[in-house]
Amino acid sequence: MSETKKPNLYKMRLPEDLKKLSIEQCNMLCKDIRRILIDTVSRNGGHLASNLGTVELTMAVHRVFDSPEDKIVWDVGHQSYTHKILTGRLDRFETLRTENGISGFCRPEESEHDAFISGHSSVSVSAALGIATAMKLKGDNHHTIAILGDGAFTGGLVFEGLNNAGKSDTNLIIILNHNEMSISKNVGSMAKYLSTLRTKDSYHKTKSAVEKVLNKTPVVGQPIKRAIRSTKKAVRDLVLNSTMFEDFGFEFIGPLDGHNIEELEKGLTAAKALNKPVFVHVNTVKGKGYAPAEDNPGEFHGIGSFEIATGNPDVVLSDSFSSVFGKELTKMAQTDNRICAVTAAMKYGTGLQYFCKAYPERFFDVGIAEEHAVTFCAGLASMGMIPVFAVYSTFLQRSYDQIIHDLAISKAHAVIGVDRAGIVGEDGETHQGIFDVSFLTTVPDITIYSPSCYEELTACLRKAVNEDKGVCAVRYPRGNDKSVYDKSEVNTAYSYKDNSNGILVVTYGRLYNNVLKAEEILHSKGIDFDTLKLVKIFPLEDEIIDIISDYKLVFFFEEAYTFGSISEKYCAICNNIAPFTIEGFVRQGKVCSLLDECGLSPEKMAESIEDFLKNG
Amino acid sequence: MSETKKPNLYKMRLPEDLKKLSIEQCNMLCKDIRRILIDTVSRNGGHLASNLGTVELTMAVHRVFDSPEDKIVWDVGHQSYTHKILTGRLDRFETLRTENGISGFCRPEESEHDAFISGHSSVSVSAALGIATAMKLKGDNHHTIAILGDGAFTGGLVFEGLNNAGKSDTNLIIILNHNEMSISKNVGSMAKYLSTLRTKDSYHKTKSAVEKVLNKTPVVGQPIKRAIRSTKKAVRDLVLNSTMFEDFGFEFIGPLDGHNIEELEKGLTAAKALNKPVFVHVNTVKGKGYAPAEDNPGEFHGIGSFEIATGNPDVVLSDSFSSVFGKELTKMAQTDNRICAVTAAMKYGTGLQYFCKAYPERFFDVGIAEEHAVTFCAGLASMGMIPVFAVYSTFLQRSYDQIIHDLAISKAHAVIGVDRAGIVGEDGETHQGIFDVSFLTTVPDITIYSPSCYEELTACLRKAVNEDKGVCAVRYPRGNDKSVYDKSEVNTAYSYKDNSNGILVVTYGRLYNNVLKAEEILHSKGIDFDTLKLVKIFPLEDEIIDIISDYKLVFFFEEAYTFGSISEKYCAICNNIAPFTIEGFVRQGKVCSLLDECGLSPEKMAESIEDFLKNG
Repeated sequence: MSETKKPNLYKMRLPEDLKKLSIEQCNMLCKDIRRILIDTVSRNGGHLASNLGTVELTMAVHRVFDSPEDKIVWDVGHQSYTHKILTGRLDRFETLRTENGISGFCRPEESEHDAFISGHSSVSVSAALGIATAMKLKGDNHHTIAILGDGAFTGGLVFEGLNNAGKSDTNLIIILNHNEMSISKNVGSMAKYLSTLRTKDSYHKTKSAVEKVLNKTPVVGQPIKRAIRSTKKAVRDLVLNSTMFEDFGFEFIGPLDGHNIEELEKGLTAAKALNKPVFVHVNTVKGKGYAPAEDNPGEFHGIGSFEIATGNPDVVLSDSFSSVFGKELTKMAQTDNRICAVTAAMKYGTGLQYFCKAYPERFFDVGIAEEHAVTFCAGLASMGMIPVFAVYSTFLQRSYDQIIHDLAISKAHAVIGVDRAGIVGEDGETHQGIFDVSFLTTVPDITIYSPSCYEELTACLRKAVNEDKGVCAVRYPRGNDKSVYDKSEVNTAYSYKDNSNGILVVTYGRLYNNVLKAEEILHSKGIDFDTLKLVKIFPLEDEIIDIISDYKLVFFFEEAYTFGSISEKYCAICNNIAPFTIEGFVRQGKVCSLLDECGLSPEKMAESIEDFLKNG
Repeated sequence: MSETKKPNLYKMRLPEDLKKLSIEQCNMLCKDIRRILIDTVSRNGGHLASNLGTVELTMAVHRVFDSPEDKIVWDVGHQSYTHKILTGRLDRFETLRTENGISGFCRPEESEHDAFISGHSSVSVSAALGIATAMKLKGDNHHTIAILGDGAFTGGLVFEGLNNAGKSDTNLIIILNHNEMSISKNVGSMAKYLSTLRTKDSYHKTKSAVEKVLNKTPVVGQPIKRAIRSTKKAVRDLVLNSTMFEDFGFEFIGPLDGHNIEELEKGLTAAKALNKPVFVHVNTVKGKGYAPAEDNPGEFHGIGSFEIATGNPDVVLSDSFSSVFGKELTKMAQTDNRICAVTAAMKYGTGLQYFCKAYPERFFDVGIAEEHAVTFCAGLASMGMIPVFAVYSTFLQRSYDQIIHDLAISKAHAVIGVDRAGIVGEDGETHQGIFDVSFLTTVPDITIYSPSCYEELTACLRKAVNEDKGVCAVRYPRGNDKSVYDKSEVNTAYSYKDNSNGILVVTYGRLYNNVLKAEEILHSKGIDFDTLKLVKIFPLEDEIIDIISDYKLVFFFEEAYTFGSISEKYCAICNNIAPFTIEGFVRQGKVCSLLDECGLSPEKMAESIEDFLKNG
């Protein structure tokens, strides 16, 4: 390929052909990639700002290393879109985050270039260390590269990984993609510390020394390693003194300009040549190249579809379960100064921005640190405060031990707002909130609510905070309230409609809407049933058992994993229940279509009931 | 009290009177305390070495601070024996770790001086921050002191805590009790880093400057604060430059000699006067003052009763489930070089010392980092290795998210050796392994074995490693195999004895022995039953359902928490089962007596069956 010709992404053999390009050509490609990112995300929704920030970095990584022999592990993985484009998924990139389309995260099943699954934060160092260790044991000299944002550094798992990785004698390279944002502005001492590194000018100071080494050698291949090894002192000049990461045993390179491909390649080539654990600090700009995203990276972190010219979202949610939760808690905090709100880097996602604004001294964003969040709540509770931790269901999995050990054993009163409970949709397996019922019900003496509409949500939150004891969870789905039923029946226990139909359908949460629609479908076919909507779903209640026991046949529809479900528990007591639950991991897609796949759409509910009545 | 008179611990008002003593008298008391510690632990078992190391530190903390107004949070809590002695529990100290006796860990229910529950590692910083924050919100200027060993620093939760605490503007003091040992020798970069701090002579260098400040002021009370504030520069001299903890936003004091009460008090007094987050580094010697423990602190970490003169244990276990597991795995690793062994700081506890010796390059002690352990295993597995993570049931709670997210979603093949599954005894609520069945069964596609004897354990381990796919768990109890039944029936599925008795008793694990004894008891009363011992307990098997369905009445005894139990799952399918499980947290005591309390002793089993047959 000639130096000046613009390469055609669609016609290249990727990632191999990247190495044949000039820097100028790379920069041309980066422009194309940015256009593709903006186009696709504006249509499909997804993560934009973080991907716009890592275009050059991804390009440089694939030019310096040989994937899939070298293993690239993306932390969280929502910043891997360019990686997907550069590793043979360009033609399918328009299917991003759609049903049967490519994932918004890394999935080894999708490509051999995705070395490890991703979705939850702070995993990459540990996973990459496992991979690098296996390579070492097998005598494979390739490299493992973990790429993580500074947000991941608020999670303890990263430190457990660094503690083991630094002294590991593996070909492990940790790349910090430093943009000073995780989802919203990063919090904590680590963020501040990393920022002090960010502004150091050390790479440039030592640049000439490095260049001396690198210019003597071809850009790729063995010779460079030998050359660099033989001029160890020059390489050492690359390495700063006294960073925390050197205390952990890493060589340190950086900070590099994350939008300068040449500088990135020189730094990464040096890191590669060291053949030991290296920490590379790269400064990037979140949203780079798209003004609305650069100006407002928080809003363009994870987004729905939007208009490209303005950056305005296609649909504006006036309210959501999250915002209703956040607003109600703020109202409650006005008259009760014991109430504290805690979030793990999800202030906006969980609707706590209202609380933060009104009561900043009682609002705590602890970073992506769900373990700490719960133990911190336990400390607050031990002093008579009432901590409320709002967290996505899937991320609450991280707090399981803390809920048992720090809260439940000492009977601490704390409320967990379990947001994004149930199926969340396009983010796929790693993000569905289908396990919280299963694992929370294993916590002794816990109380769990699953409101089906805004009015029930606020009632449950008030009851949990003001009246209940011990650990309480209020779980609610992603998105907004689509209920149309009469709200006069709202309460915090259950709602039972006995029309003496002889058949009962039990459910809870937003599925109640689907049950009501199934009722209509079946009514037209001459099948009628009574309904029991649970609001307080755990502990089991004798009243509920009595109601269920009055029927010959009970259908129980539940948006939760089978084992550990509420229906399983009632089934263990009553022998007249046909349970319908989620039987395993749920892939990406639209919520309504995934519910249908799980047998939980109105149509599938009606079908199951009709079928059961016919065939038993 | 006169300067030279030896104080009588039994006659003092504690902790108040401590402040009236001279340093000489304190040292006398420390000797007495060490004698009490050695006496009691030699009789009751418990943690010795760590407690012998913190006698002076605890004394100094209680002389400088005012518990319970100042809150003391012990990490893990097994090093809090001196604290218990000095806070009104001396008279009951001989009941340490016995039924209805005082706990071997901190329990707020036991004393107002135990500010927070303890048992699991690395919790204290987060909990103390919660407490300190609540104090700040309430306008209470007292201090919160977290005391943690260097072992706790291998756990990520500590870093999540430090990241939030350093910038918190609270009166929080973190004391690092540095003895270079957690349970066995600490691992990782952090341990190495802390050791470099340990050997710095900085406190002594700045000692005279501090003394100048302190000598001008009374030892206790407000004046000192003002004095120190007004001579900020002198205090700043106390503070070292460039420790990692300063990067986290703490003032740093240390290292202090942890066995010199005078030095400790000066350092702590300065820390107190700073009125901001301070990190105090204290060097201690684990086992201090008792030669056998100083020489071999690992063996004297958590121990059974022993002979004081020699330090020899009263009972030597020839074998245990742990050692059988470790030896078998070592044997398997000889012929399969894919097998790797991982432990979270429990090399000896889990019997992996044999593996470590034979295959050090495939043995990984990751520190007290259960999250990392599982993700690291997932990385190994992604490269075709077969990782086996041996871990105590109660600590595996920390890995719940990693088991789902990093292992199960990607169908990685890894084996978890769940040691100390079921009731563990004297360590109490925080350590009972009663939740692993509940939370592991919520992991899609997991296979769980619960062998009842050594022969089954090795068979299950081989099957899990060599034949099964995905995530497998093999769970086994603490201690040794007491089974006496015929081992010809050993297999990895189930063992069914059909004597057409019309009644079936189902169980698994070591409870099978109790069922056999219950059988004898009831046989003498003319009641006979068939038995079904499960070995592979999950997933549920149709064969088992068929067997159960053949009976009119089935009793299911299970050493696991009710919700999420195996019997609950079979109850949800079969309506002829009377389940007997563990209904909540289990306090400390002897295993057999706790099993009896839970209705799972042979006598209670027989009673339940007899009663049920009589009264239905």
